[in-house]
Amino acid sequence: MRIVVLAGGIGGARFLRGLTSAVPDADITVIGNTGDDIHLFGLKVCPDLDTVMYTLGGGIHEEQGWGRADETFTVKEELAAYGVGPEWFGLGDRDFATHIVRTQMIAAGYPLSAVTEALCARWQPGVRLLPMTDDRVETHVLIDDPDAPADGTPARKAVHFQEYWVRLRAQVPAHAIVPVGAEQATPAPGVLEAIAAADVILFPPSNPVVSIGTILAVPGVREAIAKADVPVVGLSPIVGDAPVRGMADKVLAAVGVESTAAAVARHYGSGLLDGWLVDTVDAGAVADVEEAGIRCRAVPLMMTDVAATARMAAEALKLAEEVRA
Amino acid sequence: MRIVVLAGGIGGARFLRGLTSAVPDADITVIGNTGDDIHLFGLKVCPDLDTVMYTLGGGIHEEQGWGRADETFTVKEELAAYGVGPEWFGLGDRDFATHIVRTQMIAAGYPLSAVTEALCARWQPGVRLLPMTDDRVETHVLIDDPDAPADGTPARKAVHFQEYWVRLRAQVPAHAIVPVGAEQATPAPGVLEAIAAADVILFPPSNPVVSIGTILAVPGVREAIAKADVPVVGLSPIVGDAPVRGMADKVLAAVGVESTAAAVARHYGSGLLDGWLVDTVDAGAVADVEEAGIRCRAVPLMMTDVAATARMAAEALKLAEEVRA
Repeated sequence: MRIVVLAGGIGGARFLRGLTSAVPDADITVIGNTGDDIHLFGLKVCPDLDTVMYTLGGGIHEEQGWGRADETFTVKEELAAYGVGPEWFGLGDRDFATHIVRTQMIAAGYPLSAVTEALCARWQPGVRLLPMTDDRVETHVLIDDPDAPADGTPARKAVHFQEYWVRLRAQVPAHAIVPVGAEQATPAPGVLEAIAAADVILFPPSNPVVSIGTILAVPGVREAIAKADVPVVGLSPIVGDAPVRGMADKVLAAVGVESTAAAVARHYGSGLLDGWLVDTVDAGAVADVEEAGIRCRAVPLMMTDVAATARMAAEALKLAEEVRA
Repeated sequence: MRIVVLAGGIGGARFLRGLTSAVPDADITVIGNTGDDIHLFGLKVCPDLDTVMYTLGGGIHEEQGWGRADETFTVKEELAAYGVGPEWFGLGDRDFATHIVRTQMIAAGYPLSAVTEALCARWQPGVRLLPMTDDRVETHVLIDDPDAPADGTPARKAVHFQEYWVRLRAQVPAHAIVPVGAEQATPAPGVLEAIAAADVILFPPSNPVVSIGTILAVPGVREAIAKADVPVVGLSPIVGDAPVRGMADKVLAAVGVESTAAAVARHYGSGLLDGWLVDTVDAGAVADVEEAGIRCRAVPLMMTDVAATARMAAEALKLAEEVRA
């Protein structure tokens, strides 16, 4: 079975661990979000790709969900001693090595997809991990400008998604989410081919706006999924009207979508989604989703451990078979 | 008193610590060798500048003489896990931060001299540290090609100085030492000005070929020193016909100079040097050096501790006054 999964960071990575546990023999291609990539200290950092790679490769910091296990922060401390920041982004020494290798390869002319493949040669994640694009796409968030003139004129500024998410902890209103560069980007080699060859396409409980939404913003990806004649099934990242993890509600508000399992399904729409899983606490949303033309089931959606997550993945595949039949 | 010192790595740095101890109020400008700079892992590494900066700034690994104290090697181990080398160059985590800051600033358009000043703002070395040039100069060493054809045709290859020095430990014959790029290089801002304004110019017991020789190879530097109407005094790095530290004998052989205190003085020549200090064990060389038109004294030249090194520096300044009188 060939499965294509669109994935952001922590939520996508944990779901993938459940999926690979549920169907160990499946041929899984992951299309990873690169909209939250950022250049820090002159190095190219790809948080979502690395989270997937480290999680599936056994190098992740389990409790934190991102970064490396047994991490130290000597380099970061030294950079701070030079007065070089930002200090709000937690890059550890082990993680630095990944970014050094990536940056060196990119400087040598390799596209990000080739770099990702080279990094995965070490981690052996058990899936084929592709960046959504080899082009530079950077998600920016439009916020109120704290340095706006005092005369009351509303002024806004765009900040990098990581600044909004990590430094500001999504605690300021987001007026718009803009995947800068997406319109000019092309899908990375293998992305459209994997979608065209897939038996099933899954949307894990990743952020619908800044993770999966950004992947879908790369011209050709949404269209390829919409026209693929195979089941497309998603899992709600919203449980009981709140994100299971992270601050998806903040960015959903920015794009005018309610933080409910049903609203997210409608946001993707029946043109894209064939099936949608909501948590059992949201069983009342099933009828609403089905009314939108998307088959829906209520099952436990808390990724408390690999076994629970594997059951979620199995439910998603089961719903895909229902849809196909 | 304005003192200009041409310095390589360990020997130069330790001498400078003695000099700043001997004359704490002197205005000291160090012209540092950058011929052994190397790009590793996509980062610009300046071993000699950093050794001077760390030594005078209190961050040096004392026993080793290079690199940082309390160093860890997590990044390097991780790079090796990715199969990315070279493994023979010992970059520690603390040291990596320096190279990351430097590389980022250079990528942002700052010349090496400005970067060095920024790094020194943290270390406060108590001297003005200038790279010999902002241009790229790389010392290459011509060695026998180990992959030469088996038919006996002699074949040679050029390797980066660090590869010859660190990886091969100078254990293969060096046929030539070539400061690649030196001919097109110009002295960094402040270098010629410092020489012109100096009251004394000192050559520490640094390597006469690959450290001081490389600095002198930057067009304009040798000429400025030769025409400066102030005493130029050097200290022999050779004691009892052997280098005090390092493998200077190997590279002296490559340029056809004997490994003796007198031969090194003659190699610099009376056109450049006014005074030369040899160790007491080489007292027999004094007459030979003076015959070459260079005033010479035999004093203890072992930099066993800061006090002993300060006495050496004081002897060099004393000889400078003798020459001046």
